[in-house]
Amino acid sequence: MSAPANPRNASVAVIGAGDYIGAAICRKFAAEGFAVHAGRRNGEKLEPLVASIAAAGGRASGRSLDARDEQDVTAFLAEADAIAPLEICIFNVGANVNFPLLDTTERVFRKVWEMACYSGFLATREAARILTRHGRGAIFLTGATAGLRGGAGYAAFASAKFGLRAVAQSAARELGPQNIHVAHLVIDSGVDTAWVRERIRARGGEAALEALGEDQLMQPESVAQAYWALYQQPRDAWTHEMDLRPWAEPW
Amino acid sequence: MSAPANPRNASVAVIGAGDYIGAAICRKFAAEGFAVHAGRRNGEKLEPLVASIAAAGGRASGRSLDARDEQDVTAFLAEADAIAPLEICIFNVGANVNFPLLDTTERVFRKVWEMACYSGFLATREAARILTRHGRGAIFLTGATAGLRGGAGYAAFASAKFGLRAVAQSAARELGPQNIHVAHLVIDSGVDTAWVRERIRARGGEAALEALGEDQLMQPESVAQAYWALYQQPRDAWTHEMDLRPWAEPW
Amino acid sequence: MSAPANPRNASVAVIGAGDYIGAAICRKFAAEGFAVHAGRRNGEKLEPLVASIAAAGGRASGRSLDARDEQDVTAFLAEADAIAPLEICIFNVGANVNFPLLDTTERVFRKVWEMACYSGFLATREAARILTRHGRGAIFLTGATAGLRGGAGYAAFASAKFGLRAVAQSAARELGPQNIHVAHLVIDSGVDTAWVRERIRARGGEAALEALGEDQLMQPESVAQAYWALYQQPRDAWTHEMDLRPWAEPW
Amino acid sequence: MSAPANPRNASVAVIGAGDYIGAAICRKFAAEGFAVHAGRRNGEKLEPLVASIAAAGGRASGRSLDARDEQDVTAFLAEADAIAPLEICIFNVGANVNFPLLDTTERVFRKVWEMACYSGFLATREAARILTRHGRGAIFLTGATAGLRGGAGYAAFASAKFGLRAVAQSAARELGPQNIHVAHLVIDSGVDTAWVRERIRARGGEAALEALGEDQLMQPESVAQAYWALYQQPRDAWTHEMDLRPWAEPW
Repeated sequence: MSAPANPRNASVAVIGAGDYIGAAICRKFAAEGFAVHAGRRNGEKLEPLVASIAAAGGRASGRSLDARDEQDVTAFLAEADAIAPLEICIFNVGANVNFPLLDTTERVFRKVWEMACYSGFLATREAARILTRHGRGAIFLTGATAGLRGGAGYAAFASAKFGLRAVAQSAARELGPQNIHVAHLVIDSGVDTAWVRERIRARGGEAALEALGEDQLMQPESVAQAYWALYQQPRDAWTHEMDLRPWAEPW
Repeated sequence: MSAPANPRNASVAVIGAGDYIGAAICRKFAAEGFAVHAGRRNGEKLEPLVASIAAAGGRASGRSLDARDEQDVTAFLAEADAIAPLEICIFNVGANVNFPLLDTTERVFRKVWEMACYSGFLATREAARILTRHGRGAIFLTGATAGLRGGAGYAAFASAKFGLRAVAQSAARELGPQNIHVAHLVIDSGVDTAWVRERIRARGGEAALEALGEDQLMQPESVAQAYWALYQQPRDAWTHEMDLRPWAEPW
Repeated sequence: MSAPANPRNASVAVIGAGDYIGAAICRKFAAEGFAVHAGRRNGEKLEPLVASIAAAGGRASGRSLDARDEQDVTAFLAEADAIAPLEICIFNVGANVNFPLLDTTERVFRKVWEMACYSGFLATREAARILTRHGRGAIFLTGATAGLRGGAGYAAFASAKFGLRAVAQSAARELGPQNIHVAHLVIDSGVDTAWVRERIRARGGEAALEALGEDQLMQPESVAQAYWALYQQPRDAWTHEMDLRPWAEPW
Repeated sequence: MSAPANPRNASVAVIGAGDYIGAAICRKFAAEGFAVHAGRRNGEKLEPLVASIAAAGGRASGRSLDARDEQDVTAFLAEADAIAPLEICIFNVGANVNFPLLDTTERVFRKVWEMACYSGFLATREAARILTRHGRGAIFLTGATAGLRGGAGYAAFASAKFGLRAVAQSAARELGPQNIHVAHLVIDSGVDTAWVRERIRARGGEAALEALGEDQLMQPESVAQAYWALYQQPRDAWTHEMDLRPWAEPW
């Protein structure tokens, strides 16, 4: 079975390295020995993450990235590949919004698509350009249940996430035989973030937050672990799609 | 059960009234008594269709329409509603392209999405704006198997068609309880067009065309009939999604 | 396009001709000119249906049928074919039960499967045996949302309905090119029956029944109409699967 | 996050411990410290496996098991639970057959269902009976692409595998909130077995076997690794379903 690249000489590019899932992915892959290159809207927010990885003996860099800008994405992935040969690109840009159909403006619909779908296409294609040259690698995309089922109020978000899932499927069928593992992670729950906790409080008050049982919110580290497990798969048994949800989540 | 509107005083707007499926839809609904308002890229090509419907005693109008232009779509649907109260909006814009992932330019990916998904969102939302005022009506969208499954070479097209399907699902869940029937038709085959016949010839020569058995290519009229059957459904038993393919089609 | 058989010389076999959907199907196809042969557990309950169809000038017969008994199914379909060449077989046996997993006995699991899946296989195969000889015909199967999604308490029912859907898909792919239309109807709601009304009363009292809006329960006649619409499809555009739900149904 | 049980004091029951995937699962979980209890049709064939695990310092036992026999399954799981508290039950009974619909006998249809679906239900329910008492554990089921899509010739096999998938979904929704992880593994390829290699030779001759590229057949060990990865998931991020296929597999 194919051995993973020696992480000491390989890089992981994380597009959408936000405070939660994105940051956890960066920490995990850095801890496993990869040079991590992180991009997000406001690059200055990456400083504590980069510093903490470095303090732990890992290799990390980061910068502002507009994931919807073709040239910026191309440059960002080239940077990662220059630091160390690109081995994995993880796309993790979120854009969860909820609007009644009639209140979904042209601008919102387009922007959500640009963030959650179009930028995922750019990341996939540009990573594929590098990885097909290397003859190996992985492209992982963070999806959501909204990518499988459109609900009331989700015309914009579901449409973008459906579109991202199609990119993942098409790319997997095209790139698998080129030794590139394309996988789509379907996250079916809120992840434990300040925003999710705030929303729970807004709906049910402090009591709702306190009523949260153990492990009822998905931890960012658990998502990172799922990506790591995907990367550990030997190529004779690759997963293209898997769902993730907390044990007590109704679905 | 709810009776259909008196078609003599109701209009059908067809967005994407091309030479085949779109034209067949126009003819069918005009023959059933609706005032048909047709839009397509090159409005002048609608003239023979409009004339033939008129000659048959039906009511039809048509014009150039950029389905990706919000204001144009809004105006187009308002025109239909002015001719006679809008009862049905049928979205039928196609955009079938096949490119290897690495050859899918930013421009192609965006344009295919604008044609097949974004314009479907505009049509759905703007039709919903009118139909929710009427408290009744239907929005039908032409989909494809690529909306359910991404294949090699279909990153752009599948992504757009997945996105359109999500719009349809979200809208159906939101508008059903407002007495608006939203349905998505999954066409799983080539329709009998000059282009499809040319493609068959290109692959297999004249012999392949001659070898085509009876009813092996889907007829535009059959798609129009499927839409008519959807419209005939009583509202206690609406279909949201159905597939269509020729009897001998492998799938 | 292929014309439907002259119904005056063709039969429809209905397996699972219960008081609601099954009876409505019998009435509809008899009204369209078919000779209807109906089977259900307690054949004596068919007498009023058969008499009312005859009184309306239609042709109908019926008898007790154990849809799980291979020989009985074979004989029943042969009888239909002897009355007039078999054109359509409609399988409509229900078996909706809900038990927690730990309370689902071996006997229940097996019986639900025998009723909802195994008997559907027998009907499909035995109808196919006759229809492939005729070189034409249709096999329609009544499914449910439980055939697409397993929920808590539905291990037995969902498993059987999933299994039935697989039979439908496999048969469609095999029989389509032999000019036999196999379709699977996904009913996503309770149909308006005494039992469903009783259940609504049990949950919400008389008030819940009175609060039922217009057309909020699916009518058996609407399901029969859906089957009729499927049968009307020209063979260049056959539907294999469609869902049905009332307009106001949440899903 | 919940820590896995101390494997030194926990057992894994493997139902369907055949020479390939089943045996690999036994070896993997024994190597991780679990006491493995293995069942298969011909228990005597388990002797070399049990001996090799013991020789490697692991704990294993095995015996003949009729997975379709309720009492036998109940007893088998009780035995595992007596050896050490039952932590995981893995159902791995296969039944891949292909027959044209008309040649699918009643006996074949029933037997394939009993092997691939009914016995999976028994395993799930009986394992759940024990694990709900423990308040923790996992139930993993080996599925196949035929559980998601019915193809020509697969009425029996697909029907059974669809049914098994429904059991898995229903059980997951019911048992998740009871801290029991139910997962369904969709294997989308032939696994590397003598039988698969023989089939490749039968179709394409010796040359086809020699043309097999590296890692083109899924290894049983890779499936075992996938199960291990599922078991390693923290309960705030459980996967219910994942697919597995070799990198070069067309799909």
